[in-house]
Amino acid sequence: MMLLPETEPFDVIARSNVNSAWGALTVEVLARLGVQTIVTSPGSRSTPLTIAAARNARIEALTVLDERSAAFYALGLAKRSRRPVALVCTSGSAAVNYWPAVLEASMSGTPLLLLTADRPPELRDCSSGQSIDQLKLYGNHVRHFSELALPESTPAMLAYLRQTLVHAVSISLGANAGPVHLNVPFRDPLAPSLEAGPPVVDAATLAEAATVSTRPCEAVLTGGGIDLVAIERLSSHSRGLIIVGAENPRCSDEAFADAVAMISAKLGWPVLADVLNPLRNHASQNSALITRYDTFLRHLSDEESLRPSAILQIGSLPTSKVLRAWLGSLDTASFLLTSRPINTDPLHRRATPLYGETHLLAEQLQDQRSDPTWAKQWSSLELKTSRALDEKMTALDSLFEGKVAWLLSRYLPFKTNVFLASSMSVRYAEYFWMAGDRGCAVFCNRGANGIDGTLSTALGVAHAGESAVLLTGDLAFLHDTNGLMAASQLRGGLTVVLVNNNGGGIFEHLPVAQMDAAFESYFATPQNVDFAQLCAAYGVRYERIIDWAHFTDALSSAFVSGIRVLELQSDRKADRHKLLELLAIPVEVS
Amino acid sequence: MMLLPETEPFDVIARSNVNSAWGALTVEVLARLGVQTIVTSPGSRSTPLTIAAARNARIEALTVLDERSAAFYALGLAKRSRRPVALVCTSGSAAVNYWPAVLEASMSGTPLLLLTADRPPELRDCSSGQSIDQLKLYGNHVRHFSELALPESTPAMLAYLRQTLVHAVSISLGANAGPVHLNVPFRDPLAPSLEAGPPVVDAATLAEAATVSTRPCEAVLTGGGIDLVAIERLSSHSRGLIIVGAENPRCSDEAFADAVAMISAKLGWPVLADVLNPLRNHASQNSALITRYDTFLRHLSDEESLRPSAILQIGSLPTSKVLRAWLGSLDTASFLLTSRPINTDPLHRRATPLYGETHLLAEQLQDQRSDPTWAKQWSSLELKTSRALDEKMTALDSLFEGKVAWLLSRYLPFKTNVFLASSMSVRYAEYFWMAGDRGCAVFCNRGANGIDGTLSTALGVAHAGESAVLLTGDLAFLHDTNGLMAASQLRGGLTVVLVNNNGGGIFEHLPVAQMDAAFESYFATPQNVDFAQLCAAYGVRYERIIDWAHFTDALSSAFVSGIRVLELQSDRKADRHKLLELLAIPVEVS
Repeated sequence: MMLLPETEPFDVIARSNVNSAWGALTVEVLARLGVQTIVTSPGSRSTPLTIAAARNARIEALTVLDERSAAFYALGLAKRSRRPVALVCTSGSAAVNYWPAVLEASMSGTPLLLLTADRPPELRDCSSGQSIDQLKLYGNHVRHFSELALPESTPAMLAYLRQTLVHAVSISLGANAGPVHLNVPFRDPLAPSLEAGPPVVDAATLAEAATVSTRPCEAVLTGGGIDLVAIERLSSHSRGLIIVGAENPRCSDEAFADAVAMISAKLGWPVLADVLNPLRNHASQNSALITRYDTFLRHLSDEESLRPSAILQIGSLPTSKVLRAWLGSLDTASFLLTSRPINTDPLHRRATPLYGETHLLAEQLQDQRSDPTWAKQWSSLELKTSRALDEKMTALDSLFEGKVAWLLSRYLPFKTNVFLASSMSVRYAEYFWMAGDRGCAVFCNRGANGIDGTLSTALGVAHAGESAVLLTGDLAFLHDTNGLMAASQLRGGLTVVLVNNNGGGIFEHLPVAQMDAAFESYFATPQNVDFAQLCAAYGVRYERIIDWAHFTDALSSAFVSGIRVLELQSDRKADRHKLLELLAIPVEVS
Repeated sequence: MMLLPETEPFDVIARSNVNSAWGALTVEVLARLGVQTIVTSPGSRSTPLTIAAARNARIEALTVLDERSAAFYALGLAKRSRRPVALVCTSGSAAVNYWPAVLEASMSGTPLLLLTADRPPELRDCSSGQSIDQLKLYGNHVRHFSELALPESTPAMLAYLRQTLVHAVSISLGANAGPVHLNVPFRDPLAPSLEAGPPVVDAATLAEAATVSTRPCEAVLTGGGIDLVAIERLSSHSRGLIIVGAENPRCSDEAFADAVAMISAKLGWPVLADVLNPLRNHASQNSALITRYDTFLRHLSDEESLRPSAILQIGSLPTSKVLRAWLGSLDTASFLLTSRPINTDPLHRRATPLYGETHLLAEQLQDQRSDPTWAKQWSSLELKTSRALDEKMTALDSLFEGKVAWLLSRYLPFKTNVFLASSMSVRYAEYFWMAGDRGCAVFCNRGANGIDGTLSTALGVAHAGESAVLLTGDLAFLHDTNGLMAASQLRGGLTVVLVNNNGGGIFEHLPVAQMDAAFESYFATPQNVDFAQLCAAYGVRYERIIDWAHFTDALSSAFVSGIRVLELQSDRKADRHKLLELLAIPVEVS
């Protein structure tokens, strides 16, 4: 029998086994976020959380036998302290006893964190003792539900746990404060091992995982709106980057571009802009706009002089996988600004969430002393890469599908609405849509990234009575040909730029493309449809594009009424090689 | 680039990586269950399932681009063939396109298996591309939903996968046939590895995992009701065991005991009976009733002569952990009979589910030639163990809590209703409730095994107007003291036998009991409540039991009106040692 002292540094208990690490990190992160009390009820499955709560000197651990009483106790404490109180119970009917207090918390807007331990998936739905269906147990009466992954002690998974907790606490204290439910599965063994063995996680990894760069409880208690302490910390960096991902601002496109430009000017930080926000089409408002990062970061990802000391991300992460990988490799303070209270970080960085409108941040910032060589270096890379790319694109005669996006960004009439299909269309736009001032508004179904409903969504965009262009591949188009039946009642005009490579081009970029036999049938799925005849069937105008002059000519004047389809036939496999060649343009840091 | 032939034995692709193994086993098991067609739609996350479908010669793999069309295609095929058709799609909005066909399948009772690939938990709810909330996506419009575990290639997890599929197919074809949704998460890498590497699973493990002992599709198509082919296979074994777990029969207790006795007599198989069914209290109806297995299997679990060649389980698995572990160690054909279509096997055995009433099986069975030494050997162990146990119990003077259940089974008035609290109360009854003919009806909240609402449930049992006894510990009692407020309106009489060991005795049996410091406060949670005063507060009769003579005297006459509490104070830690000593009674196989 081993006698442990009443409290332990969290990393001692954490290193015993993977469940202990998970439990200890959970409690430690909650404490650092400003949670002051955890109310536990006795049970076996929740042992890793209960032991961690009992052992952690930073947090008060109460024990209440009856979970219904425990939850009301926590509710009262949360009402008085205006901080979230955490609840820990075992699997089974225990969680159901929280219900009455959850209801009151939901309706009165009181922050509670419900941590219900659960059996792992393989012990559910098979009459295993004390396993009930805990998924979404409280329905719409919690502000957020998450089924956690089974504990693992890798840095990536510990970072995921931290971020999940940061998000949960933030939501519980958000504009619509209330209860948040995290269902936490554990496999045996549930108790920490008592024999000294090799630690499952080292102290440095744990310390890193437990680092939270914000204290949401205090931030909300003292400030409201955008966290002022965080703004101060953000402003202290002279070598930062602003990353703007997909963002449909609530204000006008111009106002959004102005706000970002103001933040950039005040901080002296360059702006890396995805194609799915207004910045690339209102480029002159911003003197440090970077759009060619996907190209030059391919070979400069290890370049020390490009590493920022801070990141301000506005909206969701950009489409570019190269940029995502590079951001994930940085050990940088990150600030995530979104107008909606959602978790925007699949990279699980050590990040401070900021909820609010971009223009509010722009106004609250003070002018900072910046390092002019920093922004200049990025602008120089942008300029050199753009020039090289433009040269190559101009010289390219073959119907390479990537050139379509590049031409659209240069030849579309001013103020055209653009809808990008998911899959390769949005990626080509990300790679090759040039910065300019044509004022196009860009749309995409980027919420779920589906290819379903592409044509109909674009028709809806066009129906605003203006000229619109849809850039799509053949599969996304075929998924929604029923949309063509709406042609007769369309108010505006839609030009469908249909890049037909007879199949799913995106799968060419995945490892499964190596498996020839199943690949073509079950992944590329070539459909061999005659689009001219299809358009004829629905009485829709159709034109087969034969060369680039033909294409730019067709684009040059606005098409304002009905639907027309411009088909470009391309070669899926050849285009993949051409793409890789173009993205390998060599440029040097000056 | 590797060229695989169009079809592969499933175990070739299965051994490439853990996702491939999971996908290949899924498709193979579905094929063996009688599923003839899988309709896939192109996507990346579903690659392990799609490749497996394309490679498996036993099953037809179709590909339809649009998931909405794919699901309706499958629906039509299922309507015509009356077999479930499987659907495979990628994560994200793909699954949402199944909705219209799911609705039709639900309302028309058409079997469909929806296999929606998903991202793992750490890539959900964080704006990771194409991840939507797929948990319970189709709400009440599917007959069953299960979130699968992440793939693992251990025999136990592959057995879990097999059983989940067996259950899913059974449900889809059940009395209320319809769609079933399995959400299937995968981590990268999604494609099978193309280089030859060490296999993640060996061929024997795979072959074992893929063995299904029933073909639900055919069984339902040809028979209806209890699978006749399965009954024939079951009857072919001369050395079988009938295991009866928790079961509240829809017929009378006597009729249920008669039915089990008839099955036992026809097959010549002994009956191992949990305390949570009528058998132990209608013992003379069955000549081969075994109740002491938890004691003698503790030291005879390796005894070859006791190993059965088949198991017929009626109801859920018994409470006894010793019996569960022993059943899990057998490589035996198992038949699981339940009156409700639920999955009753947390052991994930290679089992044939049989849905139906016990008396129907009893009537359909033919007399078999049995091996008389087989049943005799079990009865002899039962007799010897019971005698030794009775001797020790009789001699025991101290207020050992386990003796309470033993005395109740011998001294309760005939036809008393008994309610057993969860946690240690039900376990003591499982260990020490003797077989007899007192006709007691035994109840327990064994659905979720909660300790919540214990007293109120027992009051409800008593309210039928008869004499009832509640056996409970102090924590389960204290969890629901509000139940005492109902005393004045109770129609029947309830005797609460309150075994007070001041805390959660069950935790003494868990590894966490080794951690003294946190243990008492957060797990055992001693409450130090004065029960005499508590009862006085509610005007409830109270008596402190001082010795066993006092106890049996108090029990001897029926208590038919109001509530009385009989408190026995015991020593939690001493009782644990006494229990282990009693369960270690040595008996030999004759």
